[in-house]
Amino acid sequence: MFSKLRRLLIGETLTTDQLSHEKFNVLWGLPILSSDAISSVAYAGEEILWVLIPVLGMMSYKYMFYAALCIVFLLFLLVFSYRQTIDNYPHGGGSYIVSKDNLGTIPSLTAAASLSIDYILTVAVSTSAGTAAITSAIPELLPYKVLITVLIIVLLSIGNLRGIKDSSRMFGVPTYLFILTVGIMIVTGILRYYFFGYRPSPIVPIEAKQTMGNITVLLFLRAFASGCTALTGVEAVSDGIPNFKAPAQKHAKIVLGLLAGTVLFIFGGLSYLSTLYHAAPDPNVTVLAQIGTQVFGSGFMFYALQFTTALILIMAANTAFADFPLLLSFIARDGYAPRQFSRRGKRLGFSNGIMLLCIASSLLAIIFSGSTHLLMPLYAVGVFISFTLSQSGMFTKWIKEKTPGWRHKAVINGMGALVTFCTVIVIGATKFLHGAWIVCILIPILVVIMLRIRRHYLRVAEQLKLTADLRPKEVIPNDDKQHVVILVDSLNKSFIKSLNYAKHLSSNIVAFHVATDSECAEKLQKKWEEYNVGIPLIVKHSPYRDVYEPLVKFIESEEHASKPGEIVTVVISQFVITKWWHNILHNQTSLFIKSMLYKRRNIVVVTVPYIIQE
Amino acid sequence: MFSKLRRLLIGETLTTDQLSHEKFNVLWGLPILSSDAISSVAYAGEEILWVLIPVLGMMSYKYMFYAALCIVFLLFLLVFSYRQTIDNYPHGGGSYIVSKDNLGTIPSLTAAASLSIDYILTVAVSTSAGTAAITSAIPELLPYKVLITVLIIVLLSIGNLRGIKDSSRMFGVPTYLFILTVGIMIVTGILRYYFFGYRPSPIVPIEAKQTMGNITVLLFLRAFASGCTALTGVEAVSDGIPNFKAPAQKHAKIVLGLLAGTVLFIFGGLSYLSTLYHAAPDPNVTVLAQIGTQVFGSGFMFYALQFTTALILIMAANTAFADFPLLLSFIARDGYAPRQFSRRGKRLGFSNGIMLLCIASSLLAIIFSGSTHLLMPLYAVGVFISFTLSQSGMFTKWIKEKTPGWRHKAVINGMGALVTFCTVIVIGATKFLHGAWIVCILIPILVVIMLRIRRHYLRVAEQLKLTADLRPKEVIPNDDKQHVVILVDSLNKSFIKSLNYAKHLSSNIVAFHVATDSECAEKLQKKWEEYNVGIPLIVKHSPYRDVYEPLVKFIESEEHASKPGEIVTVVISQFVITKWWHNILHNQTSLFIKSMLYKRRNIVVVTVPYIIQE
Repeated sequence: MFSKLRRLLIGETLTTDQLSHEKFNVLWGLPILSSDAISSVAYAGEEILWVLIPVLGMMSYKYMFYAALCIVFLLFLLVFSYRQTIDNYPHGGGSYIVSKDNLGTIPSLTAAASLSIDYILTVAVSTSAGTAAITSAIPELLPYKVLITVLIIVLLSIGNLRGIKDSSRMFGVPTYLFILTVGIMIVTGILRYYFFGYRPSPIVPIEAKQTMGNITVLLFLRAFASGCTALTGVEAVSDGIPNFKAPAQKHAKIVLGLLAGTVLFIFGGLSYLSTLYHAAPDPNVTVLAQIGTQVFGSGFMFYALQFTTALILIMAANTAFADFPLLLSFIARDGYAPRQFSRRGKRLGFSNGIMLLCIASSLLAIIFSGSTHLLMPLYAVGVFISFTLSQSGMFTKWIKEKTPGWRHKAVINGMGALVTFCTVIVIGATKFLHGAWIVCILIPILVVIMLRIRRHYLRVAEQLKLTADLRPKEVIPNDDKQHVVILVDSLNKSFIKSLNYAKHLSSNIVAFHVATDSECAEKLQKKWEEYNVGIPLIVKHSPYRDVYEPLVKFIESEEHASKPGEIVTVVISQFVITKWWHNILHNQTSLFIKSMLYKRRNIVVVTVPYIIQE
Repeated sequence: MFSKLRRLLIGETLTTDQLSHEKFNVLWGLPILSSDAISSVAYAGEEILWVLIPVLGMMSYKYMFYAALCIVFLLFLLVFSYRQTIDNYPHGGGSYIVSKDNLGTIPSLTAAASLSIDYILTVAVSTSAGTAAITSAIPELLPYKVLITVLIIVLLSIGNLRGIKDSSRMFGVPTYLFILTVGIMIVTGILRYYFFGYRPSPIVPIEAKQTMGNITVLLFLRAFASGCTALTGVEAVSDGIPNFKAPAQKHAKIVLGLLAGTVLFIFGGLSYLSTLYHAAPDPNVTVLAQIGTQVFGSGFMFYALQFTTALILIMAANTAFADFPLLLSFIARDGYAPRQFSRRGKRLGFSNGIMLLCIASSLLAIIFSGSTHLLMPLYAVGVFISFTLSQSGMFTKWIKEKTPGWRHKAVINGMGALVTFCTVIVIGATKFLHGAWIVCILIPILVVIMLRIRRHYLRVAEQLKLTADLRPKEVIPNDDKQHVVILVDSLNKSFIKSLNYAKHLSSNIVAFHVATDSECAEKLQKKWEEYNVGIPLIVKHSPYRDVYEPLVKFIESEEHASKPGEIVTVVISQFVITKWWHNILHNQTSLFIKSMLYKRRNIVVVTVPYIIQE
């Protein structure tokens, strides 16, 4: 019944060799791998304004522009250093792998932890931002904001459980549509302003809460930190190298370049527009939507803008659904995460990872009531920690290997590492109280957990390891010394079946009955003699109406012939019912006893099924 | 960990022989057995007014009084006929037992169903009424009405899981307190009216919605029907006979008489008072509280009244917690309800029944948002159906047995049956649309379910029954024809332990490995030869990464030597971990495979535990 439902939702099971990967060229590589990076522009500018407007009012736009510039500079630095990662990790260089190769366990786990947190946040943030785009177009939907967000997440999860290929070209289209519409907006926006003399009045009257003197460095840094979210998802390209057509690395680098160009254009353009059109952050209408309405009015183009924005943001979330389970499977394979995450599900996706992501991100969306702005402070920290780690990974690589031209390369990655590290500090410091602290606590905790998991697996392996001296026993399969205890509840066919089986095991069999109700016990004993079963029946009374204790006591007692350490076989007849709901009509004592007996080193449980037809 | 929590909540396990019953005399029997009946007076009057006031306004009180009279008459009729039940069922004559003895299966099941519904409603109604008493005293609590109700139910459940003796005297006190306070109120109320000339203005200005002409019979019947809730719980005495000191029956009868007297006094008195003080139903303030404020002002006595009312109502709910699980255990013993209900829990209470009652009544309270008035229409029907059944049961008994003086007795019970039956019709008809229909549908459904359950148990018993000709086989232990398949995941100590055990079973052993990942399989095969295990290893590739299917296919295939119908033993090594949370680190494949294998007639599963220390 459950399996039917599953099949309906996620489709028929697939065979392992159906696993394939469509490779793509620059034309499709760009939109598919960059949806995360490009889409983040949809909220980055707004985040800067959230910081500035309340303090500087109309003055904000100037400083916003400066912040944007710094971010763009950072972007290009990243591009250069990632080009080198691409060169050296043809099979994909996520920061987990890079730092594992060059920095060792703890750093790699730190990268793993921050990346994981980050993927979860990507989903939460992108879907809420997507919902925001929708609700800004259709305000009627505002009250259902959280619901919509969660719904999107669930749909994405189902889609990925079904196994949508993250490489399918279809996913490229929204990115291009977004770039197109935003491009048109930027151009028309500028034209309207300069040639048609459109002069916007601020949507909400804004006056500076403070005097000019107070534009402190700190404020600027906070603005910058908030804007850095625009850079999330840049590393996607270097992860995705294996998906490129040969020459993969060359294509990847081109894509990375184009990506940077696009982000520069859109992010720069939007920041400029919001300067011209005095967009001010508003919990109910996104800045993008505000600009949109002023540039396009509320006609078709406006809705097109909102729609494509929502779409690309959802695509961004979807990339996380493709990458997070993969990362988790790497970690699991290295033994730092539960093994289940390394196994492919019915439809070849890493189901467990997908479901974990679904639950975690939905929870976040619910807790933060689907507000992008509230989620932001948690977001960027993780990204930049992983940036820093992968960069310093590359740096140490050059220092160690000293391959030709290593100095120049080391400088680039060193720079990258340094700058991204500073950014981590800035973000962490400026946003600490707004939520960054959660991440700062979470990462070490996750690292410890991962180490513990690994330790557990090692111990288990240790205890299971075969030593050459340990040989299988030579047993003559006819020794009657084996102790068999057969549980009897009442004398019936099911019992006889078990008895017949037990007789194969040994001739040293005793039947054991736990009497929770003395009259039943007497009845059984009478029947036992009448029927003369031929094996001794031991009856123990259980004042606490508990079946397990007396059984174990009996087995361990002198009364029972087995010496300590000797294996005792307990035969249980399991009563099988064809209709699942009938199970509520039978108390599952035997199942319970079994689960308890398993815990005992020297008891082997034999289950003899007896099927009841309806 | 869970068990710790349980011990904390419900205490240590008790032995069966700790089961005892404190017997009580008239003095304590009265309050303990009558709390349900007496407490119901707290809302019965109000229910009548809910029907009349909207139509008749100030005229209502006259007709209320008539209605009350009829109800009191009905009460005495019941007393007389129940005296006879007491005479003939010294071990307690609930209507389930009476109708089982005299009317047969279907009627007894109908009684069982209606009683069960009734007990659940008693809890829901009494606790909501109790909450109402509290909230009328402390209006600040009104918004938390439902929460409080559910909380009370949960506390009662825990208390009963711990095993509060329903016979403990402590439970008698509230009843006496209630009788006392209400008595004082009635007396002072009348005095104030006649001697101190207190003249109340109606709390809410009421004018008749309709002209006098419309006081139809139907209206009156509806009022009467609503008032009948005052009679719920009368049968409690005849159920409780075994708890009386000898001469039990004599004592029971006296208590029954006193009970009737008390109800007459309180119910009559309150109806009269509401006439004097123009109490009018109000969803937020109970009629009792309205009268209370006018009689006592808002001083100590008022709060005492509200408090004792709440207390006795909670006691009433508690009696249901004592009786329902008991009834259920009778039904279960007769095979009409899941067996689990017939077994005593750790603390000797019938835990399952208690929990069922807790869940069901909480749900009701939540669905009807803790409103007594909304629950009422469902309530009385069940009570009177069971009255009718037990009465007609007694009636037929006389007709059949013709014991001395049977005519006179038959007349009494016949009357009882007839009148209660009419009441059922009246209640059912007048309240059908207000909710009675739910009960009318539910009862037959429950009856059918109970019959089905019984049928299932009979079938199972049938299939398990031993026939004299079926004798245990004569087997030479360890004949080598036995087929043993031992599952191997990887070659480790745990496997060797299972292998060693398997060798005891037979020398005809094959190891079976399902390859979900081909390189692992090759590794295993290499290791297998190196180590030369000495038994054949069969490897099957599972493209769908499913382990169960290939195994079964193999066993059924020609390849495997077993002939159809022959029993095959599958040996599985179960990996046991000491820390429960470590289980999330190991996918429970073996558990899953087992649960599937159990479903197959000819496969016996042998589980060899291997404990991993931490």
